[in-house]
Amino acid sequence: MTGTVYGVGLGPGDPELMSVRAYRLLTNARHVAYFRKAGRAGQARTLAGDLVPGGAVEFAMEYPVTTEIPLSDPAYNETLSLFYAQVTDHLAALALAGEDIVVLCEGDPFFYGSFMHLHARLRDRVPVEVVPAITGMSAAWTATGQPITWGDDVLTVVMGTLAEADLARHMEAADALVVMKIGRNFPKIVRALQAAAKADRAWLIEYAAMPGQTVRRLSDVPADHVAPYFSIVVVHGQGRRP
Amino acid sequence: MTGTVYGVGLGPGDPELMSVRAYRLLTNARHVAYFRKAGRAGQARTLAGDLVPGGAVEFAMEYPVTTEIPLSDPAYNETLSLFYAQVTDHLAALALAGEDIVVLCEGDPFFYGSFMHLHARLRDRVPVEVVPAITGMSAAWTATGQPITWGDDVLTVVMGTLAEADLARHMEAADALVVMKIGRNFPKIVRALQAAAKADRAWLIEYAAMPGQTVRRLSDVPADHVAPYFSIVVVHGQGRRP
Repeated sequence: MTGTVYGVGLGPGDPELMSVRAYRLLTNARHVAYFRKAGRAGQARTLAGDLVPGGAVEFAMEYPVTTEIPLSDPAYNETLSLFYAQVTDHLAALALAGEDIVVLCEGDPFFYGSFMHLHARLRDRVPVEVVPAITGMSAAWTATGQPITWGDDVLTVVMGTLAEADLARHMEAADALVVMKIGRNFPKIVRALQAAAKADRAWLIEYAAMPGQTVRRLSDVPADHVAPYFSIVVVHGQGRRP
Repeated sequence: MTGTVYGVGLGPGDPELMSVRAYRLLTNARHVAYFRKAGRAGQARTLAGDLVPGGAVEFAMEYPVTTEIPLSDPAYNETLSLFYAQVTDHLAALALAGEDIVVLCEGDPFFYGSFMHLHARLRDRVPVEVVPAITGMSAAWTATGQPITWGDDVLTVVMGTLAEADLARHMEAADALVVMKIGRNFPKIVRALQAAAKADRAWLIEYAAMPGQTVRRLSDVPADHVAPYFSIVVVHGQGRRP
């Protein structure tokens, strides 16, 4: 009997926002795996906390590189590709030996998640099942206390890593907006929002649904701010409403 | 002691995809409220099923109009506005009398949901709390077995009710795409996808995470198809991947 690799979305950070299905899979797991930066506990593992059964076998998949090599360097892709191949072999071997494995994923696994790199390599070898989850952006707009979209609003999700002109173009075309991957891109994102005439309505949410959550108008944030990894900018749509 | 109105997202349809928090609020509710079309059981109430305690007081908020009056007719907005004011008065009175009320919401309440019309009218009168949820679009892309976004992909969410030229313009600018509110707009959406050179990569998902879920390539769907209310078109991004 071949086991299944479950890519389980744990949601935005608050364990109460995990799905019932994720909770059941997690609390009954015999094998759990999760990505983390070397030397760190790992956000997904931290989120799962003591819901992981004491007897479960843990497999920490430690990134060989995060920001040490620029994305544009071919060595970055080669190093990560080898890493994904190695951890995939381990997970596939466990499944072929009959074990189910729960891979802990932050947010929703198929929405800008790392699990997709395993999924693409596992899907033709062993059974893989993905459990969707509440996204970080849902937690962010909920934290602002305002709906993100009304009526026929167009919502666009962009990464702060894009070039400033591309950011501004997408921001201008959208009614409602979500910006992720902020960090050191913050000043560029602010300039693009200004060019798109959306800076006045923008909010910065840090650590949505996590301890230390903050919600601020963008205009209240210093221009040289370096946002933490868990940061999201939202601009609410203003569409039709009776 | 004033009670709280909870706008509780129940997720895309599978009760197992409800959050732990939604499950707890629902199974401990003394008052539940939900929208429905007159004469129907209501999708949100059906999803909640027998998780609603037997002794709970139920308040069915029946839309006075759905498709009988065109959106463009001022009577549509007036009729809905009066309806929202009336049900809001009822919910506020219950909260002021000390009762907590769980409002059952399909999907995520702040993402194209009906609850936002109550929220806007309640927020200055009584405590309101929103519980985010897994969106129907997450269930749809998960059902396709492929990630919706990779790397720096731009994701755009559009409603099929937009004009064909606007649809095509937004579709062309996006890397990954979600189209909702399909129904009789299906032929128009297909033409816009063709104009944006994305029809070949599009999928139609009906009843995602519900009984009767179907996943088809758009090219396998007849051109005159009338999609049910719970239909979503997705085009997956093809961004950077190691």
